[in-house]
Amino acid sequence: MKEKTDIGTGRIEAFSDGVIAIIITIMVFDLKIPEMTDVPHLLSALYLMVPKLLSYALSFLTLAIMWVNHHQMFHQISRSERKLLWYNIMLLFWMSLIPFATNFLGAQPMSWLACLVYGLIFFLCALSFTLMRNYALKADLLHLSISRSAQEKILRKNRMAMKIYLISAIAGFFSVYLSYFLFLVVPAMYFIPEKIVHDKN
Amino acid sequence: MKEKTDIGTGRIEAFSDGVIAIIITIMVFDLKIPEMTDVPHLLSALYLMVPKLLSYALSFLTLAIMWVNHHQMFHQISRSERKLLWYNIMLLFWMSLIPFATNFLGAQPMSWLACLVYGLIFFLCALSFTLMRNYALKADLLHLSISRSAQEKILRKNRMAMKIYLISAIAGFFSVYLSYFLFLVVPAMYFIPEKIVHDKN
Amino acid sequence: MKEKTDIGTGRIEAFSDGVIAIIITIMVFDLKIPEMTDVPHLLSALYLMVPKLLSYALSFLTLAIMWVNHHQMFHQISRSERKLLWYNIMLLFWMSLIPFATNFLGAQPMSWLACLVYGLIFFLCALSFTLMRNYALKADLLHLSISRSAQEKILRKNRMAMKIYLISAIAGFFSVYLSYFLFLVVPAMYFIPEKIVHDKN
Amino acid sequence: MKEKTDIGTGRIEAFSDGVIAIIITIMVFDLKIPEMTDVPHLLSALYLMVPKLLSYALSFLTLAIMWVNHHQMFHQISRSERKLLWYNIMLLFWMSLIPFATNFLGAQPMSWLACLVYGLIFFLCALSFTLMRNYALKADLLHLSISRSAQEKILRKNRMAMKIYLISAIAGFFSVYLSYFLFLVVPAMYFIPEKIVHDKN
Repeated sequence: MKEKTDIGTGRIEAFSDGVIAIIITIMVFDLKIPEMTDVPHLLSALYLMVPKLLSYALSFLTLAIMWVNHHQMFHQISRSERKLLWYNIMLLFWMSLIPFATNFLGAQPMSWLACLVYGLIFFLCALSFTLMRNYALKADLLHLSISRSAQEKILRKNRMAMKIYLISAIAGFFSVYLSYFLFLVVPAMYFIPEKIVHDKN
Repeated sequence: MKEKTDIGTGRIEAFSDGVIAIIITIMVFDLKIPEMTDVPHLLSALYLMVPKLLSYALSFLTLAIMWVNHHQMFHQISRSERKLLWYNIMLLFWMSLIPFATNFLGAQPMSWLACLVYGLIFFLCALSFTLMRNYALKADLLHLSISRSAQEKILRKNRMAMKIYLISAIAGFFSVYLSYFLFLVVPAMYFIPEKIVHDKN
Repeated sequence: MKEKTDIGTGRIEAFSDGVIAIIITIMVFDLKIPEMTDVPHLLSALYLMVPKLLSYALSFLTLAIMWVNHHQMFHQISRSERKLLWYNIMLLFWMSLIPFATNFLGAQPMSWLACLVYGLIFFLCALSFTLMRNYALKADLLHLSISRSAQEKILRKNRMAMKIYLISAIAGFFSVYLSYFLFLVVPAMYFIPEKIVHDKN
Repeated sequence: MKEKTDIGTGRIEAFSDGVIAIIITIMVFDLKIPEMTDVPHLLSALYLMVPKLLSYALSFLTLAIMWVNHHQMFHQISRSERKLLWYNIMLLFWMSLIPFATNFLGAQPMSWLACLVYGLIFFLCALSFTLMRNYALKADLLHLSISRSAQEKILRKNRMAMKIYLISAIAGFFSVYLSYFLFLVVPAMYFIPEKIVHDKN
């Protein structure tokens, strides 16, 4: 029973798709070679771009994983509600700051401050995901066949991701390489999204 | 009865979604840290970005609210017409200037001129919303079950928002903080869109 | 009868919508106020932006009209074909150069060269529209009920628009104001798209 | 039988469409005329932009061909799978670097390094296409009626395109004009996508 006051999940998904497609693509515009320099300088210019390329690749991969998980989650949601809409907008807001964090990290790869900002923004994305899934679970927005224990398992994984991002944000004070390593852990954890378990009964 | 000459509301909504998704996302590209400075300067660079971040967050929130209300409105419209299409294009035009106004306010947070431009553009967005809703009401484009008195109530709220934005635009002459406060009032008013009231009979 | 080898008109329309939404929105990013200048300079900076704002508004309006006519045209097309697809890609290519032409005209409002480039690119858009409509007519891609005489009338109007843009491109040699006037004529001509006339029989 | 765990091909196509629309459009933003110069300099500025315009046109054309082939391929796929999704994300990643390569080539049209980067990125796009099609073939994701021998023929063509791009990447060491010629060969080869051959039985 779709109510007239609700915006369908289809529309939320389409809008989120548009925003994520823009975020994921537009970061590439920070990858620019300076003009009119001769070849030795070009090679070193390309070499200096390596941190930018790596931070772009990392953000692209992580955003792609978020997109996959976003869809899997909305696939499980049977109906939409105003509050869910606002949780989703909060998530999109933090995701929209990823290009900023990526640009910062690419420009200042050895700075603890860049690691702090990068880690914090991904922490806030993970937090928004957790809050949204938690709300969907509490407000009974999921399809009836979806297993609650599987949901709890995903929420535990989300909370783990949040902790790792929080630690990675702080880790840069001690070693930026430790931060980088931790930035890679969560994508690796999420590369394969959770199977949806349906209750037997 | 959909006529061949009409562009369906679905297509208008999809195009508007695309434009709004781009507007809302692309503002983040003004958030850039200057390259190759050492850490003390980085911290102050980040500190200097606070007005940009706040104006970005404010514009993101307001655009998200506009998106929610845009959809709720089109949800109520049963058929499309050429004039409605042009009211919508006028709305998108003023919304497309929001990144410019945001960039201006973020770059010149203490300037009455930036407040004037920011307030005026949001006033013109609110005006376009009001004109479009007014037209939809007059031209009988709404679903028959939608209560006219509820529509009138929304129009009164729209006219209030217009007045507040107009005052906020001028308020910057006296105090930019007053402008900022008023910029926050309308999003707060609209955070929860109007319930759609169906007539009892 | 949709063939497996064809890309449906729905998909072409969706892709074109995406491209047009990006073109129409992203031009706003050339509207930037220089940072950190005091108020008298800000006012003159805003004043200097007037040509940019006007060329942006003109391009936004013209692109919106193109979008409306693009959809009206595809609404009349019953089936898609490879050649139609490539005519559409050619149209999108010339439309994608509109932000460049707009930026050029906004930066050099008194230059005959900017008028030449602006006029030529819009001429090439109009030419692509004409070629595509002509092909659709010749290849019998239209709904059977669409009147051929009405189609011929639209084609005559298209050819008129092409001539006006060609004259406007050259007119800048004599007077840029004449060019500007002619740039406004075609949007005015197309503001109200042709009614689709169905044959009586 | 669509499974709950799968993201439908419709959604993958819509997201890919969004990303490709952004990539194809946004490259135009590197086409900028420097401001406030008098007419003789303007003409030479426009002349200096010729390599940028040509590399933009080449990338636009090649991306349009990729879009056409991407859709034709997904049109043949009957069901989606996680692995296919990741092959598609890999393809989008390499495609997202095309604006960077285009900007590089436009800024340094006589540099072997720009040719190497441009050629390599298109090679990686072609490789991703080949891997994705190969996987779809191996994992039986295609409609049953699609001829396997036709698929093998397309794969042979893909491998040919990969080799040409690899040679074009290296050819710039000897002559950038040879690279440019080879960059044009693959679009020409793919301009007309393969007919889908259905088995007779």
